[in-house]
Amino acid sequence: MTLIVQKYGGTSVAGASRIKRVARRIIKTREAGHQVVVVVSAMGDTTDDLVKMAYQINEFPDKRELDVLLSTGEVVASTLLAMALHGMGFPAISLNGAQAGIRTDSAYSRARITGIDPARILKELEKGSIVIVAGFQGITEDLDITTLGRGGSDTTAVALAAILKAKTCERYTDVNGIYTADPRLLPEARKLTEISYEEMLEMVTYGFKAIHPRAVELGEVFSVPILVASSFNDKPGTLIHKEVSMEIRNKVRGIAHDLDVAKITVVRVPDRPGIAAQIFLPLAEAGISVDTIVQNASIDNTTDLTFTVAKSQLAGAMTVVEPIAASIGAQKCVSDSDLGKVSIIGSGMQNAPGYAARMFDTLSKENINILLITTSEIRITCIIEEARVKDAVKALHRAFELEKAE
Amino acid sequence: MTLIVQKYGGTSVAGASRIKRVARRIIKTREAGHQVVVVVSAMGDTTDDLVKMAYQINEFPDKRELDVLLSTGEVVASTLLAMALHGMGFPAISLNGAQAGIRTDSAYSRARITGIDPARILKELEKGSIVIVAGFQGITEDLDITTLGRGGSDTTAVALAAILKAKTCERYTDVNGIYTADPRLLPEARKLTEISYEEMLEMVTYGFKAIHPRAVELGEVFSVPILVASSFNDKPGTLIHKEVSMEIRNKVRGIAHDLDVAKITVVRVPDRPGIAAQIFLPLAEAGISVDTIVQNASIDNTTDLTFTVAKSQLAGAMTVVEPIAASIGAQKCVSDSDLGKVSIIGSGMQNAPGYAARMFDTLSKENINILLITTSEIRITCIIEEARVKDAVKALHRAFELEKAE
Repeated sequence: MTLIVQKYGGTSVAGASRIKRVARRIIKTREAGHQVVVVVSAMGDTTDDLVKMAYQINEFPDKRELDVLLSTGEVVASTLLAMALHGMGFPAISLNGAQAGIRTDSAYSRARITGIDPARILKELEKGSIVIVAGFQGITEDLDITTLGRGGSDTTAVALAAILKAKTCERYTDVNGIYTADPRLLPEARKLTEISYEEMLEMVTYGFKAIHPRAVELGEVFSVPILVASSFNDKPGTLIHKEVSMEIRNKVRGIAHDLDVAKITVVRVPDRPGIAAQIFLPLAEAGISVDTIVQNASIDNTTDLTFTVAKSQLAGAMTVVEPIAASIGAQKCVSDSDLGKVSIIGSGMQNAPGYAARMFDTLSKENINILLITTSEIRITCIIEEARVKDAVKALHRAFELEKAE
Repeated sequence: MTLIVQKYGGTSVAGASRIKRVARRIIKTREAGHQVVVVVSAMGDTTDDLVKMAYQINEFPDKRELDVLLSTGEVVASTLLAMALHGMGFPAISLNGAQAGIRTDSAYSRARITGIDPARILKELEKGSIVIVAGFQGITEDLDITTLGRGGSDTTAVALAAILKAKTCERYTDVNGIYTADPRLLPEARKLTEISYEEMLEMVTYGFKAIHPRAVELGEVFSVPILVASSFNDKPGTLIHKEVSMEIRNKVRGIAHDLDVAKITVVRVPDRPGIAAQIFLPLAEAGISVDTIVQNASIDNTTDLTFTVAKSQLAGAMTVVEPIAASIGAQKCVSDSDLGKVSIIGSGMQNAPGYAARMFDTLSKENINILLITTSEIRITCIIEEARVKDAVKALHRAFELEKAE
């Protein structure tokens, strides 16, 4: 008998009727002859509501306490799902992070899984039960409750699939799978049937929200195939796995975009060692997450240093950077907050030339100005005006023939 | 340094501002030089809301799952209270039932505490923390979460006070203490400064809701003094402890009443062994809680068997009893649902005659008809018409001079 791990997100379990629908989907898998372990997130807005309650009590809630508080959301959802399965005549049991043997370090609010003791899960599976695990949480050596931070439940699911040697980790959510571009922006975007871990990582990092990068990475390390599919219909979804058919595939797999981009340029920075650290360490300490960093070639012993941040962090970043820029002798800081990001992604790109040229040419023909360029081996990203992102996605999708079936 | 266990009920922690008020009260105790362990119930209607959610999913929710679900309510309250204390500059930590070492049997929804391992609590107290324990819950040998059923958080508090050898267990709620009668019914009722465990047990069993009888019993067994006081003001409350001043006290300590009484009489039951069991076993199996049972002396080899139930259970009880009555050859069943109960309680009564007579005489002078009488060593209870309960309480309160200070 093969084992399948399924993960259902918060929207999929928001309310009694949705929980029952999830239960019916689990039963289908069960009746197809599989053992099933299910990981659930907290129902709908539960986590946000709990956070709000905490901040009403204390503006700076203790992280340990906040973790215990938030962990209850997933526990509630897991018990209700077990009850729904019972109601349909199937044996099921809910386990919280501690009971499921999910051990973590004690970095509250962003704990890392250090190991999983699957004894209890295996015992319940042997008894014939469907096992429902509360996602997003674990327990330290001292039996303190931790939460795994962003992407926590995805990570729980993939980690369990790895340790239990599951056939697949199925990640059910409110989207039908991974598309060649965001279908809300580009209706002609095509759903992919498969994608490699590497490509998926670039996609989610550069704008796709379907699954957290941390879970994809974990899936890659442990070779867990991850299926991303909708919990609201029976469409087949997209399988994230090792690339097996690279040569025959279209080289560009998807166009990612992101509308939340602001840019800061420190102009005429004296070009000497240690300058970058002097700027980026204080930003990190201020909790500002820097995305793309570009440093131009040095001219006259000065250089321009440009980096992007989320729009909401622009003002904070400027407050940190301006005095530093003055103290290191830079000319000035300039910022721009109406930007977006468009990326072409495909692992086939790394062995074939000409993709960058075709991308720049396509944008140029649309009169879209490129402000910054960054690349990885399997991705090319251009920062452009926010207002032109949709046009860019559309043009690139067509230029790389993504609407055609593979 | 002495240790005090405090317990706050659901109304006391319903909402951010109430939680902060509770925190300030805890801090007062702490600043008076005590170590403090706090037990909290779930906020306001949380438990009811969770139960409703469960029944929306499954009409017959699994008890294990329901316990896990309900246990989250107390966990949420305990973390928020810890955060409130942090916000006021005091070290505090929340512990769930498992972390607090509260071991129970596996009778879900009504588990009994089998033992407490206080290691973690003691460690946190040594560190100087105020320890907040989520009430109402424990953990089995297999690490499954249980709840303690009715009076669960009171029981947690008294059990912790016992094992930690606390000076007092303070039970804070929305009433000012234990009164000689219900002050909502009788404004002249007087608050008692102290009461014995035994008397308190009779009071709560016969109509007072201030604390659960199970917690009072546990307090008696382990000699834990329990203070019942309001969390909304600083009035002194009532101390439940071993009786020390019986001889000098007024012999009747309080008048309890209960308006939720219905009566069934099985008329002319053949008087032979086993008949009572034939009636009461099926009632128990149907989940109907029978209160007072009175069987009259046998005349002509038949007897009348009368018992009381809560009004909401009258119809169900009749459905169970009528066919049995027919099958054992009783003449008929009659019921009456407009009844109430009034009791005089006082441990002094057991060594002094004449209380029953004075009670019956008082009721008679008020033209109140007594339908049933039951007694314990320290209590006399009369079942009367519901409409006359208030008059009865008033008359008895005056007759036994309860308005006078002791």
